Amino acid sequence: MLDTAPLLARLVHGRRPGHSLDAPFYTSPEIFAADMELIFSQHWIYVGVEPDVAEPGDVMTVDIGKASILIVRDDDNAVKAFHNVCRHRGARLIDEEKSTVGNLVCRYHSWTYDLTGSLIHAPHMGPEFDKSCKGLKPVNLRSLEGLLFVCLSDAPPADFDEMAARMGPYIAPHKVRDTKIAYQSDLIEPGNWKLTIENNRECYHCDANHPELTVPLFAYGFGFSPEELDPIDLENARRYEALRLTSHAEWEAMGLPSREIEELDTRVTGFRTERLPLDGDGESHTMDTRAACRLPLGAFTNAKLGGLSFWTQPNSWHHFLGDHIVTFSALPLDAGRTLVRTKWLVNKDAVEGVDYDLANLIEVWTATNAQDSALVGMCQRGAENPAYEPGPYSPNTEMLVEKFQRWYIGRMTEQLGL
Amino acid sequence: MLDTAPLLARLVHGRRPGHSLDAPFYTSPEIFAADMELIFSQHWIYVGVEPDVAEPGDVMTVDIGKASILIVRDDDNAVKAFHNVCRHRGARLIDEEKSTVGNLVCRYHSWTYDLTGSLIHAPHMGPEFDKSCKGLKPVNLRSLEGLLFVCLSDAPPADFDEMAARMGPYIAPHKVRDTKIAYQSDLIEPGNWKLTIENNRECYHCDANHPELTVPLFAYGFGFSPEELDPIDLENARRYEALRLTSHAEWEAMGLPSREIEELDTRVTGFRTERLPLDGDGESHTMDTRAACRLPLGAFTNAKLGGLSFWTQPNSWHHFLGDHIVTFSALPLDAGRTLVRTKWLVNKDAVEGVDYDLANLIEVWTATNAQDSALVGMCQRGAENPAYEPGPYSPNTEMLVEKFQRWYIGRMTEQLGL
Amino acid sequence: MLDTAPLLARLVHGRRPGHSLDAPFYTSPEIFAADMELIFSQHWIYVGVEPDVAEPGDVMTVDIGKASILIVRDDDNAVKAFHNVCRHRGARLIDEEKSTVGNLVCRYHSWTYDLTGSLIHAPHMGPEFDKSCKGLKPVNLRSLEGLLFVCLSDAPPADFDEMAARMGPYIAPHKVRDTKIAYQSDLIEPGNWKLTIENNRECYHCDANHPELTVPLFAYGFGFSPEELDPIDLENARRYEALRLTSHAEWEAMGLPSREIEELDTRVTGFRTERLPLDGDGESHTMDTRAACRLPLGAFTNAKLGGLSFWTQPNSWHHFLGDHIVTFSALPLDAGRTLVRTKWLVNKDAVEGVDYDLANLIEVWTATNAQDSALVGMCQRGAENPAYEPGPYSPNTEMLVEKFQRWYIGRMTEQLGL
Repeated sequence: MLDTAPLLARLVHGRRPGHSLDAPFYTSPEIFAADMELIFSQHWIYVGVEPDVAEPGDVMTVDIGKASILIVRDDDNAVKAFHNVCRHRGARLIDEEKSTVGNLVCRYHSWTYDLTGSLIHAPHMGPEFDKSCKGLKPVNLRSLEGLLFVCLSDAPPADFDEMAARMGPYIAPHKVRDTKIAYQSDLIEPGNWKLTIENNRECYHCDANHPELTVPLFAYGFGFSPEELDPIDLENARRYEALRLTSHAEWEAMGLPSREIEELDTRVTGFRTERLPLDGDGESHTMDTRAACRLPLGAFTNAKLGGLSFWTQPNSWHHFLGDHIVTFSALPLDAGRTLVRTKWLVNKDAVEGVDYDLANLIEVWTATNAQDSALVGMCQRGAENPAYEPGPYSPNTEMLVEKFQRWYIGRMTEQLGL
Repeated sequence: MLDTAPLLARLVHGRRPGHSLDAPFYTSPEIFAADMELIFSQHWIYVGVEPDVAEPGDVMTVDIGKASILIVRDDDNAVKAFHNVCRHRGARLIDEEKSTVGNLVCRYHSWTYDLTGSLIHAPHMGPEFDKSCKGLKPVNLRSLEGLLFVCLSDAPPADFDEMAARMGPYIAPHKVRDTKIAYQSDLIEPGNWKLTIENNRECYHCDANHPELTVPLFAYGFGFSPEELDPIDLENARRYEALRLTSHAEWEAMGLPSREIEELDTRVTGFRTERLPLDGDGESHTMDTRAACRLPLGAFTNAKLGGLSFWTQPNSWHHFLGDHIVTFSALPLDAGRTLVRTKWLVNKDAVEGVDYDLANLIEVWTATNAQDSALVGMCQRGAENPAYEPGPYSPNTEMLVEKFQRWYIGRMTEQLGL
Repeated sequence: MLDTAPLLARLVHGRRPGHSLDAPFYTSPEIFAADMELIFSQHWIYVGVEPDVAEPGDVMTVDIGKASILIVRDDDNAVKAFHNVCRHRGARLIDEEKSTVGNLVCRYHSWTYDLTGSLIHAPHMGPEFDKSCKGLKPVNLRSLEGLLFVCLSDAPPADFDEMAARMGPYIAPHKVRDTKIAYQSDLIEPGNWKLTIENNRECYHCDANHPELTVPLFAYGFGFSPEELDPIDLENARRYEALRLTSHAEWEAMGLPSREIEELDTRVTGFRTERLPLDGDGESHTMDTRAACRLPLGAFTNAKLGGLSFWTQPNSWHHFLGDHIVTFSALPLDAGRTLVRTKWLVNKDAVEGVDYDLANLIEVWTATNAQDSALVGMCQRGAENPAYEPGPYSPNTEMLVEKFQRWYIGRMTEQLGL
């Protein structure tokens, strides 16, 4: 970090507001290392959902850069996180992404930890060896109504609880804990994680690139330059705005908080939410805009609940529909590659082929993810070009991209003590 | 560059004349970065031919290191070059190596540039956005009788025009602009670009390695130690020399400049040319030494025109025959890999299978390229060996290798301000 | 080295005795480079056996990091080693791992060296060129009863001869020079070379991971915590100890030195040996514990000779049985990959399918190598985890791992002048 600090300080200070970042933020291995140390090791990172470890003994591993984390449900039904490293010779303890165990046993020399991380067996270490000092190292973990966030720092941002308090009422009705994972896709996007997030924070590119996603999504919901709309489009935009407001009022009357909370660049744990009306039949993110799963989530009886979106800095976005949830975690691999892990959740009692058709459930976001991956790749190759220079964001359609950059630059400024 | 400069200065100063370079010139990623910055971004780089973009709207992309360049023929039939980066979010504008377009449209947010590089459409940017500041960045481009050279620097070497003036009469009769690309091969050689060029600048290795190329090429044309020749060989060498001189006289009488120009290490844009007699029937670089294409190039009526060779520093070589042209561009990928792009050009009216057999046309150089690639790989692995040390060049057969090194060291010396 | 030296000094000084090393020793490319320079270029490295180059003109190449070495048997039957680099343009001279030649001829320009390394032909270099200065550079080589060790330094450790004097009587009866290589496997383990060696220096992991190897090997032979044994196990351990002592006495009476020599961390060329009894029929490292080859090695008439093991720092281990030899060379590829080259040797007169079944011969160690490779990979991934910290070695079962670390840290301390 010592060598990179002056470069980073210069680049952080030199960031031009309203523009994409300087190229090294996307391409430099040194800045990537700083991102992993100052952003991904110091903030709350979204990694999965409680249904990933539904039963006691269920274990999930997730990698954040070179850190590997065990998420375990213990025998008291508590979800805990540990570093995935044996305290003996340092072997990775669990290789599989998902497994179910009685205890956590290292394959190398059979050191054995219980599900609370305590070392309970270490053969041949002799009578003077003190097992109590060699339990698994814990990792901070929080569940926001079933969404799991970890923080690798011993001093995690304290404002998580306030986010949880404000977001809880929005998410709780969708009952994440009562879902199952119908499908998971792991897609490696050929670009820096910030390009993945930038791409996620605007729909300026949707019209030209996402023929599937723009079936349920209203084009007007993501900004436009009013001067460029013809009278018919302008009237449609006005109608959409009226629909948004009346929908909010109706949904909130049903006990579903829906109005925007926008805190993307105003707090350490930046986030944003809003429930938005959907086009067509207005039920779900599907090609026919109808629910993909016959069993609704939670206690919902009305299918036309729009889509509740939730974004967190630095690495997640989520769409809560009436019938399913799609939840995304962006996990950086190196300066030029990012794993986007997508999980589709349905009511845990739903039966594939009976209550939902898997191809129909995942069609919109599988196509959209592939399209986004190609766009992120184009931007990465562009940023690597010596002729690249930061370009201007649209004040009408790229406001949330700018807010991500402000959050990132702000966090780097504070972490670097600038 | 700052950190590498002292190392580079020491190595540049320490170069031992008449010997191959010190190992880091072939293996160090830092020196490779300096090569890309000081050689490939500051000199005229050969990238292709006008027939690559034969019609208005034709676009070719070519990568020089991490730079990507668009070569476009505009509606006024002018060939222009631009950096292949959108001025908005920096996406690579065009992915395909070859395409035909009306305008240059970024897939990401539909920013649209016309074929002269002007930004003509940028949706939703609002009324205050000034499109005139965001045209594509131009790249310097010159056509030498249809051979396209670009220079990434804003201050390209001024001596290109003089080279063009002297070389024009040699090349013009072969009418590059009236050819088509019969075949292109992209071969990644497993070695530093300087090993690729060194290998190209001598035929000392031909006898032991190129059974196909030595069919049309006379062994005596590329140097030998007279002390080592037996009386028969010596007599043959003398005959070859006489043939060379009488051929020059005959060809020049036909209006085909043929005598050597040797400026490989005497100018910024170093080059060399000479028309050489061919063995056998003396018509072409083919296995039967006869023309591969029934239609001659340009207005040629005599098939026995030998082979006009043209070499430029730092990255090209070309062979102009009476019936076809083979043209080579070496494009560095990293310290240990170089793309060699070979194009075979024939009369644009020639029909494959009727006027020429493709396998016959490309046989000699396809085999030769593959052999050279293996040799370059052997040298790269050798240079990576800690036991490597610079070895001596033959004063009889490796003079042009030495001239390449002198040019390279001279250019580095000047660029580094040593 | 200059930049890495302070980091290395700090890490070397900070090594905590009795614990695995700090993570950078396993993961840092800079420390890997230091390992190659200070350990693998300054010590005797085991690379193969005389039967690899059985006849005059036989050539073997072996790579130690980026160094490539030619091992040649010359016309006087002497085995010699040279750097595998042509003195002309630096090409790798020989590509194949094994070949048979008359002279050593560079493919590039036909420079020709005889089997003693003298340059005997260099065409077209002119009358002033002095061939006598351009012979192949020699590499120090020693044969310990047929086991070949090279040292890349011009000042190799002088204590090799003393090791050879002490080890010779142990190894000589197995007559390595009268064997042939029945099989060789090259396995790339996904871990640092020190993890490969650490794994080799204990059998604490055997019980849980090596079902095949533990057939011929007695579990008690590799340490245990007596407090943890139940009365039956304790009695078995006592019996094994008695067997070990009586076996030593019997074997030594037969002229086979068998007692332990333990010099792993007490000399520059650290080594250890001991002949150990085998389980079952006690003849060989096979699944039925019987000899795999009908023809014994050397002049043996008694099949129950146990297994003579021999370990050297930094990179080899060997098992000499009555009927065959298994010999292992660990060759680092980069910070996270190590080539483990295993050769199975049998009596040179043995015929495959008649005197031995190849699958039977190699079964135990093929399975064991694959298992070890997976364990090494687990440790590498663990060491790359930021949460890794050095863990404690068992005083009962990991003594030789500790001795390897002490040797390594001691050698680094001396090489760095700390």
